[in-house]
Amino acid sequence: MGLKNFDLMKKIAIPTESKVVLLVIDGLGGLPKDGKTELEKAKTPHLDELAARGISGMTDPVGRGITPGSGPAHLSLFGYDPLRFEIGRGALAASGIGFELEPDDLAARINFATIDEEGKVTDRRAGRISSEKNKELCRLLEEKTEIEGIELFVKTVKEHRAVVIFRGTGLSDELNDSDPQVTGVPPLEIEALSPIAEKAAEIVRDFLHRAKEVLRGHHPADMVLLRGFAKPPRLLSLTEIYHLRPAAIAAYPMYRGIARLVGMDILSTGGKIEEEFRTLKDNFLKYDFFYLHIKGSDSAGEDGDFQRKVKVIEEVDRNIPLLTDLRPAAIAVTGDHSTPSVLKSHSWHAVPFLLYSAWCRPDKVDEFSEEACSQGGLGRFPALKVMPLLLAHGRKFTKYGA
Amino acid sequence: MGLKNFDLMKKIAIPTESKVVLLVIDGLGGLPKDGKTELEKAKTPHLDELAARGISGMTDPVGRGITPGSGPAHLSLFGYDPLRFEIGRGALAASGIGFELEPDDLAARINFATIDEEGKVTDRRAGRISSEKNKELCRLLEEKTEIEGIELFVKTVKEHRAVVIFRGTGLSDELNDSDPQVTGVPPLEIEALSPIAEKAAEIVRDFLHRAKEVLRGHHPADMVLLRGFAKPPRLLSLTEIYHLRPAAIAAYPMYRGIARLVGMDILSTGGKIEEEFRTLKDNFLKYDFFYLHIKGSDSAGEDGDFQRKVKVIEEVDRNIPLLTDLRPAAIAVTGDHSTPSVLKSHSWHAVPFLLYSAWCRPDKVDEFSEEACSQGGLGRFPALKVMPLLLAHGRKFTKYGA
Repeated sequence: MGLKNFDLMKKIAIPTESKVVLLVIDGLGGLPKDGKTELEKAKTPHLDELAARGISGMTDPVGRGITPGSGPAHLSLFGYDPLRFEIGRGALAASGIGFELEPDDLAARINFATIDEEGKVTDRRAGRISSEKNKELCRLLEEKTEIEGIELFVKTVKEHRAVVIFRGTGLSDELNDSDPQVTGVPPLEIEALSPIAEKAAEIVRDFLHRAKEVLRGHHPADMVLLRGFAKPPRLLSLTEIYHLRPAAIAAYPMYRGIARLVGMDILSTGGKIEEEFRTLKDNFLKYDFFYLHIKGSDSAGEDGDFQRKVKVIEEVDRNIPLLTDLRPAAIAVTGDHSTPSVLKSHSWHAVPFLLYSAWCRPDKVDEFSEEACSQGGLGRFPALKVMPLLLAHGRKFTKYGA
Repeated sequence: MGLKNFDLMKKIAIPTESKVVLLVIDGLGGLPKDGKTELEKAKTPHLDELAARGISGMTDPVGRGITPGSGPAHLSLFGYDPLRFEIGRGALAASGIGFELEPDDLAARINFATIDEEGKVTDRRAGRISSEKNKELCRLLEEKTEIEGIELFVKTVKEHRAVVIFRGTGLSDELNDSDPQVTGVPPLEIEALSPIAEKAAEIVRDFLHRAKEVLRGHHPADMVLLRGFAKPPRLLSLTEIYHLRPAAIAAYPMYRGIARLVGMDILSTGGKIEEEFRTLKDNFLKYDFFYLHIKGSDSAGEDGDFQRKVKVIEEVDRNIPLLTDLRPAAIAVTGDHSTPSVLKSHSWHAVPFLLYSAWCRPDKVDEFSEEACSQGGLGRFPALKVMPLLLAHGRKFTKYGA
């Protein structure tokens, strides 16, 4: 009966004036140190009050035991099955620096690398050249590498890392990497992995050939290694699926990039947490769905800095009244995944989730923490269900069936 | 492994003499008013005792955030994935008045409507004619509209609403509505939405043509508008899937209709709750599966009458001993969905569920309420799993695999 994919959502979603807010505290979930996680250690009176008045639970970003990258974790939160939709590495890297990919673009990650006289890779990171040198080389590559019928973008990420975007038509991403992943061997030849990729293969080989010439004299950055060829995923937008007018508030480019891929308007904002909340306030009347992203908690977790992660969470908490004063119809507060500072990395652990709305059925949870949320009325559920749950409480769904 | 659809169920289900009862308190789940939901406010000593001796949980009728109509909600409870199987509007309307649909029947909803001299719809409800007038017109339409090769049924629902059933062969439901949904325009022409529906389109056009003549002189009911063409869904019966001898006890026609679609015998019963329980007792030896449906709780919720919903639940509770005295092997008590009286409508909230059987593993829940059940040993699960859970506890399943 045709209710696969997003058909159900399209069918029941109704445009309304009500506002819903998805507040994502990146890497929120933690692991205990001296008996308490970062969130449990943090003083969060406002979030605790929301938990007391709302309903809580725990989410699995992709699945039990699966540690997600930012791409899959966010796709899931936005309602796109991360096992079905994938943001390829090249596309993610381009999004990550805020590059606005067009549907036909082909992107790949670049490593500047050192090559010896025999053409073998001796250093896959070109001695970790500075970001400044990187910028200079990217500019050169972009300016001096003309390929007929192709618009070329070469953009710095950081140190030895950059990204290249080929803009043209008929460019398949079914190409192998040129990066051999090891030293002592030459870069791999770019080959089409299927016949439709022949055109792209030729263009990329052409680019590599010219890049080698452009980089002559810039030792140790003698060459570029390419990997992770990808086109942007073809995702229905949140507007097409849920009839939303969605906006993203995120200080970090990567998250603006992912939000753009699902069709959100990107609001310009400052790098401080309070500035992000102010941006929400300033734009509150213009949209009906807001994704507000906090990066610092994840960075602190990745750095293994328990105390800094606690402080970031406390800073978010201090700003919660700015959000609640706006009186959205529904608020969800969660993370995209866990980043326990004792692990210094993303992890597979479930993520605390709280939902506050006049229409939620409150549970007994009166604290926002891993332990409390795991006793919450929403139970444990896939992050993929966050959107329907949030939009239902925002009264943006009508009944399914008679 | 070939175990899709109902293959697993068919494989493990075994006919037994044991009795299982699925008691559905329609719209059971609620939202708090002054801190308590309808179920939490109700005095339910017998249900509380069942909860104490049994195991509890919360179900999602269709999915998180999805508000189901009665059709999908019941399909789910009966073990049919409501996103895969759909009871179309026309078929549901026919079921709703207790009309016994045959597999090839084509049904549609009727609105009596007022048409002006130019043929434009001026009132889609014909001034809400009385149900008596409606009955008279349905009789006329049924008697005076002969279509070759077709048996025609025109049945009153209420006021301006009725239902038409075309009984013949090869009648597809892929037709557009004639109801334009707005006034000031003529009714829409009936068109086949696919080539196989040409025959049905012709027959329905013929019916409409004759209906117009029959209704001449019955202003304001000048015409019928048709919508929601549907054939009954092709569902394997509960007997085919689980080898059950199932019976339905439901005072409201709609629920008898849905039960009939899944192959239950329909037991005649009175409109009072106690009469329904007596019907169960009177027929207890004749069947091995009973669906007992209580409507009042949903109606009270829809009316926004918190106190009446409390009273209905209390009345159900008083009758529980009639059920437990029969000593079924397994009893499930739940709702098909939530109907919080503060919302005056069906909602997406999870539904309390309790299972009592000599073979259940009791949890610590000692009260039948949303809050208690959300801490129950069954956790939160899709209503689609109610049937296997109930039948397993009724010892109606054998082992899967060696």
